[in-house]
Amino acid sequence: MSKQGILFVLTGPSGVGKGTVLAEVCKQKELYLSTSATTREPRPGEQDGVQYYFLTREQFEQKVAENGFLEHAEFSGNCYGTPAEPVDAQLDAGHDVMLEIEVQGAMQVHQMRPDAVRIFIAPPSFAELERRLTGRGTEDADAVRRRLETAKHELTLAKEFDYIVVNNTVEQATADVLAILRAENCRAAQVEIK
Amino acid sequence: MSKQGILFVLTGPSGVGKGTVLAEVCKQKELYLSTSATTREPRPGEQDGVQYYFLTREQFEQKVAENGFLEHAEFSGNCYGTPAEPVDAQLDAGHDVMLEIEVQGAMQVHQMRPDAVRIFIAPPSFAELERRLTGRGTEDADAVRRRLETAKHELTLAKEFDYIVVNNTVEQATADVLAILRAENCRAAQVEIK
Repeated sequence: MSKQGILFVLTGPSGVGKGTVLAEVCKQKELYLSTSATTREPRPGEQDGVQYYFLTREQFEQKVAENGFLEHAEFSGNCYGTPAEPVDAQLDAGHDVMLEIEVQGAMQVHQMRPDAVRIFIAPPSFAELERRLTGRGTEDADAVRRRLETAKHELTLAKEFDYIVVNNTVEQATADVLAILRAENCRAAQVEIK
Repeated sequence: MSKQGILFVLTGPSGVGKGTVLAEVCKQKELYLSTSATTREPRPGEQDGVQYYFLTREQFEQKVAENGFLEHAEFSGNCYGTPAEPVDAQLDAGHDVMLEIEVQGAMQVHQMRPDAVRIFIAPPSFAELERRLTGRGTEDADAVRRRLETAKHELTLAKEFDYIVVNNTVEQATADVLAILRAENCRAAQVEIK
């Protein structure tokens, strides 16, 4: 029996730096990143299967009906989801897979795949997250306030995850995530005794 | 509430290299190593509380009766055990503790402390363990054969541990153990959300 890959889920509130941490992790560890599907229109330059799988709403709903998503949700009238099939193909080939998704999606994955290893990236403090989101300067005060309200709720869910990585610095958070990936590959169930 | 330390147990068959790996781990991570108690006579130069706590058989049996050991066993007419008290004092002070003990002892710790994180060091293959034990040249063929029989049985228990680290090289096994220590400190129950 050849080794199955491990499904990892990386999540955390908006502004916590999960994308930055994941980019660093990928420099040091080979990892298959999943591609989401969406019903929104492709923007100029976006290619099907690269940034997203672009589906019609009909195709999307069909896939939902077939349990074809590990998680899915609707934002501002568009549907987004993580197709299960390409993820499973990689896992079956023995490759570890990382989903970088929103907190609610990460909760859904747990329903579909209780064996997924779920990592929650947390800010050093709520005040620091506030400072980071305000400091971006790309959104009006109302949008920031909404993000912070969502973040406050999401932080109450952190304890339901397997791991919590506090993003004090990108270096430390990256090393923490890499340690988790390495340790999970040493789980007794993963290792073959010869 | 201040953070409790984590209790780690490192075990594996005789000759697998757990002492070497642990020595390397300790160069890179602060870790409290527990001291065993024994009823055997101190050898010249051995100090009470350093190599061992030296107890009379009466003192040892008293401690067993009080549930004062995390694990204990008798070998060649002498008793050996891991006293719980100094371990708990370190855990309460927030320090991670590592017990390097025999496989049977590691199984006992699980009974007493189900939350202990147990790491099994395995050889790359049984043939390689045989080669290493024979290569030592310090024991007669009978003693080596007995060790190998014990090892064969112990390897069947590996899957009951939390982690299995295959000691292909000291560097890789050390990095695996360090990753496990780091990852366990990111467990959701260990991390305080601010």
